[in-house]
Amino acid sequence: MKIEVIAVGNEVVYGYTVNTNASFMARELEKYGAEVCYHTSIRDRKEDIFNALDVAKNRVDTIILCGGLGPTKDDLTKEMVCEYYNLEMEKNKEALDELKDFFRRMQKEMLETNFKQIYLPIGSHLLINRNGTAPGCVFEADGNMVALFPGPPRELKPMFNDFIEQHIVPQLDKRCITEEVRLLGIGESQIASEIDDLLGVFEEVEVAPYLGEGYVSIRIKGYGTDKDTIEKNIDYYKNQISTRLKQYVIGDTKKVIEEVVYEYLLEKSLTISTAESCTGGLLASRLINNNGASNIFNEGFITYSNQSKINILGVKKETLDSFGAVSYEVANEMALGVMKKTGADIGISITGIAGPTGETAEKPVGLIYIGIATKHKCVSIKVNLYGTRNEIRKLATAYALQNLLKILQNTQEEL
Amino acid sequence: MKIEVIAVGNEVVYGYTVNTNASFMARELEKYGAEVCYHTSIRDRKEDIFNALDVAKNRVDTIILCGGLGPTKDDLTKEMVCEYYNLEMEKNKEALDELKDFFRRMQKEMLETNFKQIYLPIGSHLLINRNGTAPGCVFEADGNMVALFPGPPRELKPMFNDFIEQHIVPQLDKRCITEEVRLLGIGESQIASEIDDLLGVFEEVEVAPYLGEGYVSIRIKGYGTDKDTIEKNIDYYKNQISTRLKQYVIGDTKKVIEEVVYEYLLEKSLTISTAESCTGGLLASRLINNNGASNIFNEGFITYSNQSKINILGVKKETLDSFGAVSYEVANEMALGVMKKTGADIGISITGIAGPTGETAEKPVGLIYIGIATKHKCVSIKVNLYGTRNEIRKLATAYALQNLLKILQNTQEEL
Repeated sequence: MKIEVIAVGNEVVYGYTVNTNASFMARELEKYGAEVCYHTSIRDRKEDIFNALDVAKNRVDTIILCGGLGPTKDDLTKEMVCEYYNLEMEKNKEALDELKDFFRRMQKEMLETNFKQIYLPIGSHLLINRNGTAPGCVFEADGNMVALFPGPPRELKPMFNDFIEQHIVPQLDKRCITEEVRLLGIGESQIASEIDDLLGVFEEVEVAPYLGEGYVSIRIKGYGTDKDTIEKNIDYYKNQISTRLKQYVIGDTKKVIEEVVYEYLLEKSLTISTAESCTGGLLASRLINNNGASNIFNEGFITYSNQSKINILGVKKETLDSFGAVSYEVANEMALGVMKKTGADIGISITGIAGPTGETAEKPVGLIYIGIATKHKCVSIKVNLYGTRNEIRKLATAYALQNLLKILQNTQEEL
Repeated sequence: MKIEVIAVGNEVVYGYTVNTNASFMARELEKYGAEVCYHTSIRDRKEDIFNALDVAKNRVDTIILCGGLGPTKDDLTKEMVCEYYNLEMEKNKEALDELKDFFRRMQKEMLETNFKQIYLPIGSHLLINRNGTAPGCVFEADGNMVALFPGPPRELKPMFNDFIEQHIVPQLDKRCITEEVRLLGIGESQIASEIDDLLGVFEEVEVAPYLGEGYVSIRIKGYGTDKDTIEKNIDYYKNQISTRLKQYVIGDTKKVIEEVVYEYLLEKSLTISTAESCTGGLLASRLINNNGASNIFNEGFITYSNQSKINILGVKKETLDSFGAVSYEVANEMALGVMKKTGADIGISITGIAGPTGETAEKPVGLIYIGIATKHKCVSIKVNLYGTRNEIRKLATAYALQNLLKILQNTQEEL
C-alpha cells in the first residue's frame, strides 16, 4: 500500500501553520506497517486540489486529505473532491446526530453554516469527529481509497487510529518495523566514516541517520511479511551499530529523553529541582511533560536576574562578580543552591547566553553552562551552541537532559 | 512566479521530523511577494526525486529542494537532481575554502566523506552555508530555476534571505502583501456567520480565517503590481472586519502574543513574575523568548507540589484544603503571593489539571485557572481546555498571555 497525505489549506502552504498532521499520520501509519510515500500541501483552490489528485492517483493507491472541511466559504475540500470524482453528496443522519451532540456537550448553539458539514459523498463511510464540527469520511473512487479529515490536529488525531484499524489494516499484505539507536556527541560525518557499510538501502532493510535536537538517531527500518524475519534483520544492524559506536549510544528507544530521565528518577525514587536562567522554565516544563511528574518534581526556579540567583539560590555575589553569571562557578552554585533549598536529591541548573545580544569577547552567543549536583558531587558542563535565541534555549535544555541522563546512568553510588 | 518547495528525506516522509523548513521558506518568500504554491515531501530515493521533479516542472517555475546534501550514502539529492537534468558536477573552489574554514572554526578534523559535498553542478551559483558542511546551489534547468539547500533548519535558515535577495527578487513582477486581524473568544463558525460576505477569494484579495493556538486569525492577502492599490484593498477588508468584530479583536499584527505583552510591559516599565503549576515553566519561557526579557522579568517559580505553593508563594494550607489546588482561590493566592514575594508589578499564576490522569467528578482534565494580580486588583479566569497533556499545557499558557494582554489593554489606572 502506497499512501499520499495531502494537506489542503492556504495557512499551511503560506507557512502560517506548520504541517504537523502529515508527520503525525505518517508515524501512526508506520506503526501498523503502512507506508506514507509522499506529503503534499496545496492551497484552498479547485485547480490545485484537482492537480494534486491527478498527481496522487498516478503514484499511490491511498489518498488522505486533511483540512478544508470547516463551515466557511474557503473550506472547499469536500466539495472539490466530490466534483473531481463525480460524486453526489447526501445528508448523513449519523453525522447530524453527532453534530447535535457536539453542540450539546459544548453548550453552544448550532449555526446555519454548520449544516453543510453533515453532507458526505454518497456511499462513503463516516469518520466520527468528537472534537469539532467537521466529520471525516472515507470512500473508494477511481481505484483509490480516499479519506477526508478535518485540519485541526486536536480533531484529526483522536479520529486517526480508528480509521487505521478499520480501513487501512485490512488492506495490508506487508509489514514494517522500525527501531532506532540514539547517539550523543557524534556527528553525521563521523558516523558515516565509522559505519559506512551499514548505512543505506539493503534487501528489506533501510538504515539512515537522522538529526534530532542535540543528538543523532540511526533508524533501522525492516520490511517483509514475517515478523520474526524482520526483527532478525533489524537486530543484525542494531547490534553492529551499537557495538561499533558503543561509547556514543544513549538509548535505543523511541522515548523522548525526558521520559527516559523520568523513568530513571522514578525507579530510584529520586527527586529533582531546577534552577534556570536563559532557558527560563523550558527544562522544568520538559520534566513536567511526564504524566506523574509529581513523583520526581516538586518545585523549580527561574532565576533570570543576578539578584534572583543570589536571593533565591544563594549564589555568592563575589562569584557573580568574579566569573560572571555565565560560568562554571555560577552553574555549580545554582545547582548546589537549588538542591539545598528544596531538599531534592538532584539539583540541575542552566545559565548561558541565548542571544542575539549579550555576548562579550570571551563569552559568545550560544555559550551555555549546565550544573548538576547530587549528594556526592557537583559537575558543570560547558557547551557551545548556535542558532536563534529560541533554538539555543531548546538545545541547551536537550543537552541538560542528556548530561543528566549520562550522570544517572554512570553513577555507581546510590544518589 | 510559482514556487514549489520539495523536502527530500525519509525522516520527513516517515514523520520523524516535522517539516518546519517548508513553512519557514514560504513565510520568508511571502515577505518579498513570492508565492509558494506547493509543498512536497519525498523519500531519499531516485524514483521519488525524479517523480517529484516531473510533477513540479509542470506546475511551477521555481523549484526549491532541501535535504539530502549531507555526506552520507543516503544523501543523494544533488546527485539525483544532476542525473535528472543531465548535469555534470565539478569541484567548487569557493565551497572547498568555506568547508575548510568551517572545520577550522569548529576546531574539528575534516573527513574524507565531506569532499563529495564540494562538488556542484557545472554553471550553478554557490549558496554559502556557514553553519554546516553542505553548501547549497542554484541553477537554471529545463526552464526552471532550481535551488538546493541543506535540510537542517539551523543551516538552511541563515542562507535563505541571501538567496531570496539575489535570485528571487530580480524575477518578481507582481507583489503581495499580507495582514491579519487576530480574534479571541470567537470560533470559525461564528466568524462565518458574522462576516460571511468578506471571506473568500475576491479580485486581487484573499480573506480567510486560520486557527491559531487559542485564537483565530483572519488573514487578508492582497496581490498586484502597485503597493498603494494593494494596501488600499487590504485596508478595506481590515476595517470591515475590525469594525464588525470589534469586541473580539486582540491585535492586527504579525507578532506572537508574548512579543505584544513584552512591548506593553516595556513601554509602561512594568515587571512581571510567574507562578506556575501544571504549565511547569512554559509561561515564563515564553516571556523569556523575548530578547531583552530582563527588562520585564527577574524571576519565576514552578510550584508543582502543594507544599511548594505554601512554602514559596505563601498560599494558605486552608485554601488548598478547602478548595483544592485547582481553584479560583488558589490561583488568586498564587498570583498575589508571587507578586508580593518578588516585588514585581504583576503576578501571574496558572494552576490546572493537564491530565491524562488526576481528574475528579467536579474537576475534569483541561480545567485551568489563571490568576493575575496587580496593585489594584486580582482576578482569576477559569478556562476549560481539551487535548493531550502537552496541548492543554500549551493552550493554558496562551490563554494566560491573552488574558494578561486584555488586562493590560483595558486597565485605565496606572499599574
